[in-house]
Amino acid sequence: MIVILKENPDRRQLEFLTGWLQKQQIGIHISEGAHQTVLGLVGDATRLDIDMLKQMEIVEDVKRVQEPFKKANRKFHPLDTVIQVGSARIGGGGVSIIAGPCSVESPEQIALVARGIKDAGADLLRGGAFKPRSSPYSFQGLRGEGIKMLVAAGREVGLPIVTEIMDLSNLDLFAEVDVIQVGARNMQNFELLKELGHSRKPILLKRGLANTYEELLMSAEYIMVSGNENILLCERGIRTFETYTRNTLDITAVPALQTLSHLPIVIDPSHAAGKASFVPALTMAAVAAGADALMIEVHNDPPHALSDGAQSLTIPAFAKLANQIRQLESTLVEEKN
Amino acid sequence: MIVILKENPDRRQLEFLTGWLQKQQIGIHISEGAHQTVLGLVGDATRLDIDMLKQMEIVEDVKRVQEPFKKANRKFHPLDTVIQVGSARIGGGGVSIIAGPCSVESPEQIALVARGIKDAGADLLRGGAFKPRSSPYSFQGLRGEGIKMLVAAGREVGLPIVTEIMDLSNLDLFAEVDVIQVGARNMQNFELLKELGHSRKPILLKRGLANTYEELLMSAEYIMVSGNENILLCERGIRTFETYTRNTLDITAVPALQTLSHLPIVIDPSHAAGKASFVPALTMAAVAAGADALMIEVHNDPPHALSDGAQSLTIPAFAKLANQIRQLESTLVEEKN
Amino acid sequence: MIVILKENPDRRQLEFLTGWLQKQQIGIHISEGAHQTVLGLVGDATRLDIDMLKQMEIVEDVKRVQEPFKKANRKFHPLDTVIQVGSARIGGGGVSIIAGPCSVESPEQIALVARGIKDAGADLLRGGAFKPRSSPYSFQGLRGEGIKMLVAAGREVGLPIVTEIMDLSNLDLFAEVDVIQVGARNMQNFELLKELGHSRKPILLKRGLANTYEELLMSAEYIMVSGNENILLCERGIRTFETYTRNTLDITAVPALQTLSHLPIVIDPSHAAGKASFVPALTMAAVAAGADALMIEVHNDPPHALSDGAQSLTIPAFAKLANQIRQLESTLVEEKN
Amino acid sequence: MIVILKENPDRRQLEFLTGWLQKQQIGIHISEGAHQTVLGLVGDATRLDIDMLKQMEIVEDVKRVQEPFKKANRKFHPLDTVIQVGSARIGGGGVSIIAGPCSVESPEQIALVARGIKDAGADLLRGGAFKPRSSPYSFQGLRGEGIKMLVAAGREVGLPIVTEIMDLSNLDLFAEVDVIQVGARNMQNFELLKELGHSRKPILLKRGLANTYEELLMSAEYIMVSGNENILLCERGIRTFETYTRNTLDITAVPALQTLSHLPIVIDPSHAAGKASFVPALTMAAVAAGADALMIEVHNDPPHALSDGAQSLTIPAFAKLANQIRQLESTLVEEKN
Repeated sequence: MIVILKENPDRRQLEFLTGWLQKQQIGIHISEGAHQTVLGLVGDATRLDIDMLKQMEIVEDVKRVQEPFKKANRKFHPLDTVIQVGSARIGGGGVSIIAGPCSVESPEQIALVARGIKDAGADLLRGGAFKPRSSPYSFQGLRGEGIKMLVAAGREVGLPIVTEIMDLSNLDLFAEVDVIQVGARNMQNFELLKELGHSRKPILLKRGLANTYEELLMSAEYIMVSGNENILLCERGIRTFETYTRNTLDITAVPALQTLSHLPIVIDPSHAAGKASFVPALTMAAVAAGADALMIEVHNDPPHALSDGAQSLTIPAFAKLANQIRQLESTLVEEKN
Repeated sequence: MIVILKENPDRRQLEFLTGWLQKQQIGIHISEGAHQTVLGLVGDATRLDIDMLKQMEIVEDVKRVQEPFKKANRKFHPLDTVIQVGSARIGGGGVSIIAGPCSVESPEQIALVARGIKDAGADLLRGGAFKPRSSPYSFQGLRGEGIKMLVAAGREVGLPIVTEIMDLSNLDLFAEVDVIQVGARNMQNFELLKELGHSRKPILLKRGLANTYEELLMSAEYIMVSGNENILLCERGIRTFETYTRNTLDITAVPALQTLSHLPIVIDPSHAAGKASFVPALTMAAVAAGADALMIEVHNDPPHALSDGAQSLTIPAFAKLANQIRQLESTLVEEKN
Repeated sequence: MIVILKENPDRRQLEFLTGWLQKQQIGIHISEGAHQTVLGLVGDATRLDIDMLKQMEIVEDVKRVQEPFKKANRKFHPLDTVIQVGSARIGGGGVSIIAGPCSVESPEQIALVARGIKDAGADLLRGGAFKPRSSPYSFQGLRGEGIKMLVAAGREVGLPIVTEIMDLSNLDLFAEVDVIQVGARNMQNFELLKELGHSRKPILLKRGLANTYEELLMSAEYIMVSGNENILLCERGIRTFETYTRNTLDITAVPALQTLSHLPIVIDPSHAAGKASFVPALTMAAVAAGADALMIEVHNDPPHALSDGAQSLTIPAFAKLANQIRQLESTLVEEKN
Repeated sequence: MIVILKENPDRRQLEFLTGWLQKQQIGIHISEGAHQTVLGLVGDATRLDIDMLKQMEIVEDVKRVQEPFKKANRKFHPLDTVIQVGSARIGGGGVSIIAGPCSVESPEQIALVARGIKDAGADLLRGGAFKPRSSPYSFQGLRGEGIKMLVAAGREVGLPIVTEIMDLSNLDLFAEVDVIQVGARNMQNFELLKELGHSRKPILLKRGLANTYEELLMSAEYIMVSGNENILLCERGIRTFETYTRNTLDITAVPALQTLSHLPIVIDPSHAAGKASFVPALTMAAVAAGADALMIEVHNDPPHALSDGAQSLTIPAFAKLANQIRQLESTLVEEKN
C-alpha cells in the first residue's frame, strides 16, 4: 500500500502515523519527492483499514498495490477451484450448463422443463421461487411451495438444483437445494453473505448491476472468511446507458475474473440481454471466451403459444443451442491440444 | 400504457391478448400506423404485469404512460407528507438537520457528539451500529451494543435517533429507535422493505448507487403497500465515472422527487462527497434547492487530533454550518413571502 | 410516434398542434384514457422534430415507436451491406482481420508489422498517424508523415490501409488512404461526419465511450444522408465503473447492431481491454458472436524487448491468434450448414 | 508517480527502465515489499508518457501522485483567474449571468430576448448558430447568418456574446464573437482545442457527458499550452442512468473544480435538467454552492404561446429568477463578511 502525504505534514502527526503502522507489523519506506512525501508500506496490509488511513489529516491519498481480497485471490491459490454438485463438476475446464425457467409456476411446468433440459444435456436445473421484483404489484414467486416443486422436478430427472435466497429468515426452506443463489441486488447484503459462509452448500454469487470485479470478489471473501469456499461467480449483465437491451453483458469478466481469482465463472446471457434472440450469440461468445458455466433461461411453450419468454428460450431452441455449445467446446479443446 | 405490436401480428394471438386485457377491466384503443399497430390501454394499468406483456410473441414493445407507483405518487396525494418525530417535523417547508457520527464507537464518543450537535441546533441524532462495509476485514460496527449507546445519548440530550438496519433478524434491537434507516445497498432488499411496512416507525430509505428515481419510489411503494406511509426519501450520491469524489450528489433529486412524490426529501452531502471540505458547499446547495432535511456526518475530535474524518465535520465546523443553514433558510422564506 | 398530453389540455393549443401535424402529412389517432389523452401519429414521423414536440406546453411526453434512423435501418434494407476494400470483403459472412500498431513510429517499424500481419493472414493494415491523446504532453503522432509511411508499407505488402482522421482540415492527406477511421471522441463531430458523406471511401465509425446504439446509428445516418453508404460500425469498449480494464467490451453490440442495421460490425478487443493478455479471449468471443471484422493491435518487438505493448500483441502472438480465428470461423460455418 | 513492478522483475529490463528515467531527470526511490517492488519517481513527471510506462513488460501498474495538468492546476496558481469580457468580470467572487435562447432563430427573436435579459440584469448574451444535433433530420442552426444576428443583438443592448463553434473551418465567422463555446461533444476534439489556444478570446469549455474533472482540465490544458489561458469551465450535466431528466447536474463540480483549478466555473442548469420547471431550484443550488457564473436558456414567448421551451425560461420567469439570484448572492456575501 502507498500512502501519499499532504505537503509539509505535521511532524507530530507523522510520528503518530508511523507508530500506528509499526504496531501493526507494517514496515515503512519513506520516499521524499519535490512536492510530496510518499510512504511505501511493507507487510500484510490487507487488514489495514484504508478508510481510517484516508481520514488522517496528513494523508492526501492512499493507493493499494495489492488486491484487498485474499482467499478469493489466485495469487495465493494458483489452481482452479472445482465445485462438484451431484455429477456436475464446475471449474477446471469444460463448460457446465445450468438451465430452467425464471420462475417455478406449477409442478407440471417445472417437471416439463426439467425433462426437456435434461434430455438436451443440461447439468443443473434452475428455477426461481423467491422473485425480487422492482414492483410490489408484480408476481413475487411461489416461495416455499416453489422450492418443493423444484426439488421434486430435479430429483425426478436426476439434476441438482439452483435457486435464489432473498432473506436469511427463509434459510430453512433451502435444506434440499443443491446450490444457493444470491441475486445481484443482494450482492452486498453482508449479513446474508456471512451466514451463507456457515453453510456447506455451493453459493452462486451474482455480480451487482453497478459493481466492480473487486467488489464482487470482496463479497465472495465475506462468504469465504466464514468458512465456505465453494463459490461460483456469476456475471449477469451490468447497467449501462444502453436501453435497447435489459443490461449489458460484460464478457471481459471471464478472462478478468479468471486472472484475479481461482473461483469458477458462470455467465448468464439471458438476464444480460433480456431478449431471447440475442441469447445464442452471447452464449457462444461466453463459451469461446472460456466461461466455466452458463446459466440459460428456458421455458416450456404454454398451450396458447402466447409467451415465448422475452428472454427465455423454448425447449427446442435450447436443445439446438446446447448442441452448438458442445460442438464449440470440443473444437476449443482440440485447439488447445 | 401503450402496447406496440410487431408488423403483421398473428390474428389469433391478438384476440388472446385483447381478451386477456378485457378480463382485467382494461379498455383498448387500436391505432393502425403505416408499419405498426399500437394499442392504447385505458383503465388502471398499474397492476398489469409489464414483463408478461413484453414477453408476448406479437408485442414489440410496451411503454408506460403513467408512473408505476401509486401510493408514493404526488398525482394522487397532492399535499406534502409531513413526518413528525419527537419535536421534529420533516416535510412541508423548512429544513430539518440530522447529524452524528458514521459509527457509534463508545458511550463517551456518542454522548459528546450528541451534546455538540444538539447545542448547534440539530433536530435528530444519527449514528451507525450495523455498518455495511465492502471488506469483511473492516470494522463492522458495535451492533446491538451500539444501538443502546445511541439510544442513551439521544435520550440524554432530547433528540430522536436514526440508525440503519441491515437484516430483518435484528429488528427486535430497533424497538427504541425513532427512525429506521435502510441503506443504499439494501434499497431493493424487498423482503426487508415488506417487513418494515408493518412497522409504525418512520423509514429513511436511501437511494441505491445506481438506481433511478422510479426505482427508489417503487421501493418506497413496497413499504407503503404493507401499511407504513411514513417514508423519508434520501439521496446520498450516485455512482458515476468521477473518482475524485466518493460518489456524485444528484441535486436534481430534490425538485424531481418533490414533483413525482409527496414524501419528504433528505440530502446526505457527507456520503456523496466523501470529503469534509466539500460538505458545506453541497449542504448550502441542498438547502437552496429546497431539500426537506439534511443528514450530515459529524465526529468529535479524538484526543490525538489524528483523524478529522475524511467526510466528517468537527463539532465546531458543524456548528458554523448549522448557523449558515438557518440564515439561508430564513432568506429563502422571506423571498417566497 | 406517440404523443402523451398533460391532463386537461388547452383546447386551442390542441387544435394548433393537430393542425401543425396535419400540415406535415401526419395522421392522428386520439385515444382518451382515464387520466391521459394520447395521440398516435401515423405516417413518416422521422422528420418530425421530437424536441419541438416535447417543448409544447400541452405535451407531457413523446415516445418513439419507430427508430429515428432510416438509411442505416435494416427494416428498410434487409440485406447485409458488403464493403469491398482492395481484395477484402467485409460483411455478409466471414470474418475480416484488421491489424497493426496503435501508432506509426517509423518506416522500418510499420514495414515490419505490415509484413508480419500479412504473413499471418490479416486482410487490412491499421496504424495511427493522428493520435487523440488526453494529455497535450503525450506523443501526438507523426501526422502527414505517418500517413505516407503507412501507405508505403501497405502498398509494399498489398494490404489496404485504415487510419484515423481527427479534423477536416487534414482531409487532403487522406487521398491514398483506403478506409478512413472516425474515432470514438469524434463520433458526434457532426461537421466532420457530413463532410465524410461526400467521400467515396469506406468510413470506419467508432462508437463513443458513452453512446448508445441509436446514437451510433444516427451518426452513421449523418454520413449516409450526404451520400456515402459505405460504413463500418465499430464497437471498441464503453466506459463503465470497472477500472481494472481500460474500457468494457459490449459484445452484445454484435447481435444488436446486426438486428438494427445492415451495416457490417467491427470489434476492437485491444482498446476495449487495454491489456494484451485479454485480447485472445475477447477476439474469440467476438468471432463466436458473429462479428464481421476484428481490429487488433499488433506491435513489433522493439530491440530492447522492453515494451510488449500494454494492449498490443507481438507478431507471433497475433499469428497464433489469427490461426485460431480461422479455425473457429470454419467450425461455425460448418455448424450453420 | 509510483511504478509498481511485477514480481521478480527481469534485472536487465529494470536497468533499462531506471536508465530511461534518469535520462529524463527523474530520481528514483526503490521500495521492496513482501511481494512487490515499488519505484517512487521524484522530479517533474508531468511529461512522462504514462502509457509508455504501463506498456513495459516488468511494470504491473503506474499510479499518479500528482495531477497531470499543470497550467490549469491551482497548486501552481493559487489565485483565482478572473476573466474580463466587456464590462463583465467572471471569477474571483460574485455570480455572472449568461442568458439567451438555445438557437438564434431570427433577428427579431434574438433582439427581443437580448432586450429582455439585459433588462433583467444578465451580463452576457448566449445563442446557438451552429447546433450539434444527434439527428441529421433536425434543425442544424442558422450558421454564419445566425452569428451575425447574435452580434447585432448583443451590440444593440450592450452585452458581450457567447456562441458555439463546431469546426475549425468556421473560425473566421467568430471574429466578432466575445466568448467562443466548445460544446460537450467536442471537449476532446484536440485539433480544435489546440487552434483555440492561438486565439485571444475567452473559451467556454463544456464538460463532456461522460468525462471526469481531470479530463476536463486536461482539455483546458490543451488550450492553455498553446497560449490562451482565458478559460471558463462549464458543467452542463453528465449522463447517468436517470432518464427522467435529460442529464444529471453534477453540483459537486463547483467546489471540486475550484479546489483543483484556478479557472472560473460556469453552471448550465438548463441543459442539465432539460425541464424548465427544475431550472430555478438548480440555479439557486449553483449559486449557494459558489459557482462563478450561470448559463440559463431563455426564450421569448412565441405568438401562439405554444412552446415555452422544454428547458427554456420565459423572459418574465428569467427576470424573477435573476432577482432571486441577486438576493441570494448578497446574503451569501454578508455571511462571509
